[in-house]
Amino acid sequence: MDTPPLNPPVTVLRLGHRPSRDVRVSTHLLLAARALGARRAMYTGVHDQGLEESVRKVCADWGGSFTIEHAPSWRRVMSEWEGEIVHLTMYGLPIRDCIEKIRCNSSEKLIVVGGSKVPGEVYGLADWNVAVTGQPHSEVSALAVFLHELYEGKELALIHPEARLRVVPTAHGKRVEDVSSDL
Amino acid sequence: MDTPPLNPPVTVLRLGHRPSRDVRVSTHLLLAARALGARRAMYTGVHDQGLEESVRKVCADWGGSFTIEHAPSWRRVMSEWEGEIVHLTMYGLPIRDCIEKIRCNSSEKLIVVGGSKVPGEVYGLADWNVAVTGQPHSEVSALAVFLHELYEGKELALIHPEARLRVVPTAHGKRVEDVSSDL
Repeated sequence: MDTPPLNPPVTVLRLGHRPSRDVRVSTHLLLAARALGARRAMYTGVHDQGLEESVRKVCADWGGSFTIEHAPSWRRVMSEWEGEIVHLTMYGLPIRDCIEKIRCNSSEKLIVVGGSKVPGEVYGLADWNVAVTGQPHSEVSALAVFLHELYEGKELALIHPEARLRVVPTAHGKRVEDVSSDL
Repeated sequence: MDTPPLNPPVTVLRLGHRPSRDVRVSTHLLLAARALGARRAMYTGVHDQGLEESVRKVCADWGGSFTIEHAPSWRRVMSEWEGEIVHLTMYGLPIRDCIEKIRCNSSEKLIVVGGSKVPGEVYGLADWNVAVTGQPHSEVSALAVFLHELYEGKELALIHPEARLRVVPTAHGKRVEDVSSDL
């Protein structure tokens, strides 16, 4: 019933989280990361138990082994990363011009997504600065299109193991099964 | 220099906007709609001048003819819509099972995206209830993947006419040109 994990593995690094302003956008970003195949997320900025709990609650209900942790320093995470680093930014190279090279390199990816003001050093530490259009929109939509391109749509068929809840796809309505007794 | 508009034309309808809680997510959603090829957005819930102004400011700087307006009643917008209505929901049919039929129907699309609690009637008024995974994530990521699939990536090459600013894609850095003198 479970699908094999997607490759290459992805960790998302969210920069500069501010609980007061960003909690909903950061939650959306992290849930999108999980739903679209990332295995892990880290975030810098303010340590936010509420953010972590709401993501972990989704993982407990809907399955999978996605993890989230606070990282004190983006510089340290990026400079110690042993795989490939992709920074999503509207100022970068068009995704269509580089996604194939990124996909074919099997090393673990760190996908860096900004917060409000991204330090210039981030652009230098990244192997790739990638633009999902050169227009201002959202780190959530940029990450979604990036993961969808990276995994070529296979992420849409991902089944998260050990879920308590499962949607039964329905043309007009809502149907959710409690499958916790199957565990 | 300009690209032809994408077809079929898309209007996004955002349900139940609440300025205090939703302003950043709604802004991200509307900017993602614009950047990824929608022509127009409507939103229900509370009329929010600040939301409209921040979206219009982006349109003035970055070009194109995307418009945003408040609609008092989703029921009226949906029941009077003459084209096809697609409601994005994790409870719907998998996008991969229906996107081709939706793409091949050339009528104008209304893409409905929830807010917090979506009334059951919305599921019935929609021609399609479409899931971008059956997992909880974000209306921003769901809309992004949907538009990317609908337009088959052509939206990534869209050029917005009459922009004042334009990004010059760069491998490591930021470069923005002021092109207002070219207008």
